[in-house]
Amino acid sequence: MAAATVPGIDAARMQELLTSLSAFGRPAGGTFASGVSRVGYSDADIAGRRFVTSLLETAGARVRVDAAGNIFADRAGAEASLPPVLFGSHIDSVPNGGNFDGDLGSLAAVEILRVLQANRVVTRRPLTAVIWACEEATFAGASLNGSRAAAGNLLAGEMQHVSGGMVKAEAIRRIGGDPARIESALIARGAYHAYLELHIEQGGTLARDGMPVGIVDGIVAVDRYEAVVTGVANHAGTTPMADRQDALLAASEMALAVREVVRGEAGAQVGTVGHMEVSPNAANVIPGEVRMSIELRDLSEAKLERLMEKIRGRAAAIARESRTEIRLTHKVHNEAAAAAVEMQRAIGAAAGKLRLDTRHLPSGAGHDAQMMATLMPMGMIFVPSARGISHSPKELTSWADCANGANVLMESVLGLAG
Amino acid sequence: MAAATVPGIDAARMQELLTSLSAFGRPAGGTFASGVSRVGYSDADIAGRRFVTSLLETAGARVRVDAAGNIFADRAGAEASLPPVLFGSHIDSVPNGGNFDGDLGSLAAVEILRVLQANRVVTRRPLTAVIWACEEATFAGASLNGSRAAAGNLLAGEMQHVSGGMVKAEAIRRIGGDPARIESALIARGAYHAYLELHIEQGGTLARDGMPVGIVDGIVAVDRYEAVVTGVANHAGTTPMADRQDALLAASEMALAVREVVRGEAGAQVGTVGHMEVSPNAANVIPGEVRMSIELRDLSEAKLERLMEKIRGRAAAIARESRTEIRLTHKVHNEAAAAAVEMQRAIGAAAGKLRLDTRHLPSGAGHDAQMMATLMPMGMIFVPSARGISHSPKELTSWADCANGANVLMESVLGLAG
Repeated sequence: MAAATVPGIDAARMQELLTSLSAFGRPAGGTFASGVSRVGYSDADIAGRRFVTSLLETAGARVRVDAAGNIFADRAGAEASLPPVLFGSHIDSVPNGGNFDGDLGSLAAVEILRVLQANRVVTRRPLTAVIWACEEATFAGASLNGSRAAAGNLLAGEMQHVSGGMVKAEAIRRIGGDPARIESALIARGAYHAYLELHIEQGGTLARDGMPVGIVDGIVAVDRYEAVVTGVANHAGTTPMADRQDALLAASEMALAVREVVRGEAGAQVGTVGHMEVSPNAANVIPGEVRMSIELRDLSEAKLERLMEKIRGRAAAIARESRTEIRLTHKVHNEAAAAAVEMQRAIGAAAGKLRLDTRHLPSGAGHDAQMMATLMPMGMIFVPSARGISHSPKELTSWADCANGANVLMESVLGLAG
Repeated sequence: MAAATVPGIDAARMQELLTSLSAFGRPAGGTFASGVSRVGYSDADIAGRRFVTSLLETAGARVRVDAAGNIFADRAGAEASLPPVLFGSHIDSVPNGGNFDGDLGSLAAVEILRVLQANRVVTRRPLTAVIWACEEATFAGASLNGSRAAAGNLLAGEMQHVSGGMVKAEAIRRIGGDPARIESALIARGAYHAYLELHIEQGGTLARDGMPVGIVDGIVAVDRYEAVVTGVANHAGTTPMADRQDALLAASEMALAVREVVRGEAGAQVGTVGHMEVSPNAANVIPGEVRMSIELRDLSEAKLERLMEKIRGRAAAIARESRTEIRLTHKVHNEAAAAAVEMQRAIGAAAGKLRLDTRHLPSGAGHDAQMMATLMPMGMIFVPSARGISHSPKELTSWADCANGANVLMESVLGLAG
């Protein structure tokens, strides 16, 4: 059945859905604008999952939860033997987060099933909506909890990782998963036809330029390093300036060098020193050691390596000059995840049908989609997010933009499902 | 009686005394070289105080403890109505500290009483040796606990301050003081003739230049500021480099600006950024706020103000350039404490008698002596400290230098006591 016969999703409906979900984890006495703390594996998350599950069941889908706690909602197609089209997002938030990151893509998926049911649409391929478990929650530095399990990228001993006093195995049990059978969450290659995810941009470029739809080229690669700067802790009153081996001054030069190297090439690459621990960290003691993070992101892994070579060179010069030692350790490498060209084309066609302008852009943030890209063709749709603010109660996408995104997702799903 | 008739203190005796005291608070299974954790008000401090008290009593002095826990040992003089000469130091240490900071001046004072008793010396003025309570221990940012009470510089509500889970009033009671009568620890002007303190330099200049004795000009003034740098916390992946308002980059520029301003003038002034707290302090979030300390020290308070004016100017420029806000708050001002010229002369004369070279120098570190300088003429004797290392088990002064310092102290005391 052609997508043209299906009525679109409207702004009022998206507002209703996003507002309903926002109640789970809303600060006491707050409003929608107060944002949400629906932290993965928390009571608020569990209540939110129950709410979304009821919506999926009402939409006539068969709901199942895998061993990682991912919620799948299956809808039959005309040809049951074909791999289904998979689409969705997550509903957990960071602490003190917003009501659009994850929620928009999840509720759009829910609403698509409802619209198809209400209009008795039967697609050729089956459809599966997915609510990935706990995309934001971080155990031992790793997030994307549900989709990472589905992609077979769990870390050694991950079930024993602890966060906020909770062991991961226990956390998974809380949301109805089964840590003992966690490997059963793995999705086989070929099990699904393709994966689509709608998400707010989180950068401010679509909003700034009034562009309603972004077609994601890919999700950037991330390299994260730890720099340990070792100087000599000494008395801040009695040590002459010339005799100091001040780890914090060397670390400050490092932070500025990272910016200079990253800005030294054309392109959209970013580099950040976000974490710094000073030791002994007393006003009257010259710092003896600083531990700091260096994070680099770009679609091109070759560029990331080139930038890091320059940063290593700067570190060696700073260490020599400041008579400190600077050790750099590679801690995290997330591969770039390309969006499949045919998926980008499908999204472009859907937007064209809806007469919505589009722009291609990379995603600087990580998403469940990057895990799915290792298993099947992946496509992502971005909608504008005001001033690029995310992970904050101030996260804001207009209801009209939400509806546009949901409609592009629905048209894309229908285009792929036939 | 002339000092020339008194035999000197020898290196072996100083080694014996410092080694005996080092047992109180020594790490389990350690040696003298393992340093000491004789933290003020701790069990080790209390045991060390008992040991030193027994030495003072054996030396024939009358021992009393004031309401702040300071230990005084009085020795009669020929003219009982004259104010005594006061001399001493402290025996408490920082955690994981060394065996010379405070201990040397305290044990030299003890040994002087023993030598005078053994040789039946009667001075014209009475003498009082003092072991100041808990010079290093910090409650709510303030140390010099015993001498500060004696100088009447207690802070409002200080008896209720808490450190390491202990309320200060209770801590004082533990060492035999009386918090309810803490004001009785105040020393009246005129109660003593003068104050002398022997201490290791803590800077490395005497050791580097092979100079056995330092005559302290004064103890530097200290100004401590807090800088709060406020930027905008944002996603490290999605926020383009040009759009960032990164508080840590601005803070890094501030730290380097402090060094540049301080080194921009001739002189012995020092400036330190020793403390830095980054928020939210995550590798994948652009820092939104940094709190950092700025500490400046010099004998000249006018110079400190001039340097801070320059730092304020640099802060304004950095804030403008980085689109952050930088607020500077004055947190601590310790006045410079000049050593009395006649006391410097008395120390110089004593060293001359012992044929020891001397050099005048400021103290960059704080000492109990700075509190006494508000009440009476103050003089300080420094001896070399290897590489200027202090507040560390590696703190090291040769036994010969310890004996030289003790002898200069004794000659100075005898010179002043007549």
